[in-house]
Amino acid sequence: MSGRVYLIGAGPGAADLLTLRAARLLAEADLVLHDALVTPEILALAPRARKLAVGKRAGRPSTDQAFINRLLVRSARYYRAIVRLKGGDPMLFGRAQEEIEACRAAGVPVEIVPGVTAAFAAAASLLASLSKRQVARSVAFVTPAAARGATRDESWADAAAASDTAVLYMGRGEAERVCASLHARGVPLSRPIVLVESASRSEEAAFGGVLSELGALASLVGEGPVLVLLGEAFREAAQRLTGARSAAVA
Amino acid sequence: MSGRVYLIGAGPGAADLLTLRAARLLAEADLVLHDALVTPEILALAPRARKLAVGKRAGRPSTDQAFINRLLVRSARYYRAIVRLKGGDPMLFGRAQEEIEACRAAGVPVEIVPGVTAAFAAAASLLASLSKRQVARSVAFVTPAAARGATRDESWADAAAASDTAVLYMGRGEAERVCASLHARGVPLSRPIVLVESASRSEEAAFGGVLSELGALASLVGEGPVLVLLGEAFREAAQRLTGARSAAVA
Repeated sequence: MSGRVYLIGAGPGAADLLTLRAARLLAEADLVLHDALVTPEILALAPRARKLAVGKRAGRPSTDQAFINRLLVRSARYYRAIVRLKGGDPMLFGRAQEEIEACRAAGVPVEIVPGVTAAFAAAASLLASLSKRQVARSVAFVTPAAARGATRDESWADAAAASDTAVLYMGRGEAERVCASLHARGVPLSRPIVLVESASRSEEAAFGGVLSELGALASLVGEGPVLVLLGEAFREAAQRLTGARSAAVA
Repeated sequence: MSGRVYLIGAGPGAADLLTLRAARLLAEADLVLHDALVTPEILALAPRARKLAVGKRAGRPSTDQAFINRLLVRSARYYRAIVRLKGGDPMLFGRAQEEIEACRAAGVPVEIVPGVTAAFAAAASLLASLSKRQVARSVAFVTPAAARGATRDESWADAAAASDTAVLYMGRGEAERVCASLHARGVPLSRPIVLVESASRSEEAAFGGVLSELGALASLVGEGPVLVLLGEAFREAAQRLTGARSAAVA
């Protein structure tokens, strides 16, 4: 028996933001190994499959990557179609390379199905384009979270500071360090930011302001995954959200 | 009569890389205004709709943006569901903001449906993740093409040079300028690159090498849309493709 592994992007959260190809492969899947954030609505697209949650969730204990790699390879001995379902797109901050290499090293055929990343869903909800003619011709996606045990590497901040628009896939409790790192590289504290929690889900929430308010805004978000959008392209959206918050408080 | 405008990402090219939501809205659409690169297979998902090609294709005459804006607003008087279908994701180099503002100014309801960008499909085909633990924690998407009539602005190169991975949505005939701009900002000429033409389509082609070979590789690609992937994350993929090319020549 030699199964095939599909690394599939589950998109930002809403079940109908999966691709047609992802939905078809889920319908045919025998085994689905999924991230913790994948919803029951999405898993319902795989009625035939055995389902297993295998981590990751920022700030919570999660299944070890080496264990997931071994599980994928072993599953190919017992199942025909194995789907590894990851939030967003597998090739953008999805640790896909390690799973691909494990499969290739073991001779297990592996195929990637791209997905919609959360930043695209956040921009869609805000009606604010990540790029904007004359204003934003470069868009950087960065992860300010330092790898556990690794030397602190702030090169993400160089990329974010050099780009017109930056999207930060930020961990919890990092707002102060993120703000200081960006400001130290010349990003003005008045640059617009929008925090979007649970983009595309029913519980989606957005908070707008400027970079100096990153910590305060981060304290408003709940338990869902959070993105920070930074740049002049979000000035109008940030002001609209700030106005809405003031009105709600008044 | 007041119609609703949906700006929808058509994804990288393959029809089954549209989202479920995009497919549903296309099936219900009365009018589809689409980019030139959207394929007949994708348009077949909108059997009820009148279809109109409205531009844009790099290096070819295309419909004026102001005309598209007016067309969208006017269409809302005569059609219930108007789909504006754009390659990739509408919010990444899709000129979406101008169409959104035109609709909002005219009081026409507008909704964005995100899509899979071509870079995700390219990375999927190459089995090479855009981000990579310890190697690539920042990914920049940039457009080196100077806006017509605008002052040459090379800030895209700052963003690309400061990022571990860069994805260049590059126009034709720009390879020399792109290579020189990146090298002037300290990017080594030996950094791996992969050019992917028509990502996810049946005619997809990929060419690997290093930055100094950008011009030579660009001369190998055909008429389809081209992406350049730049960074150490693509070293293995670039070498694999270089080996394949040498074997084909021998």
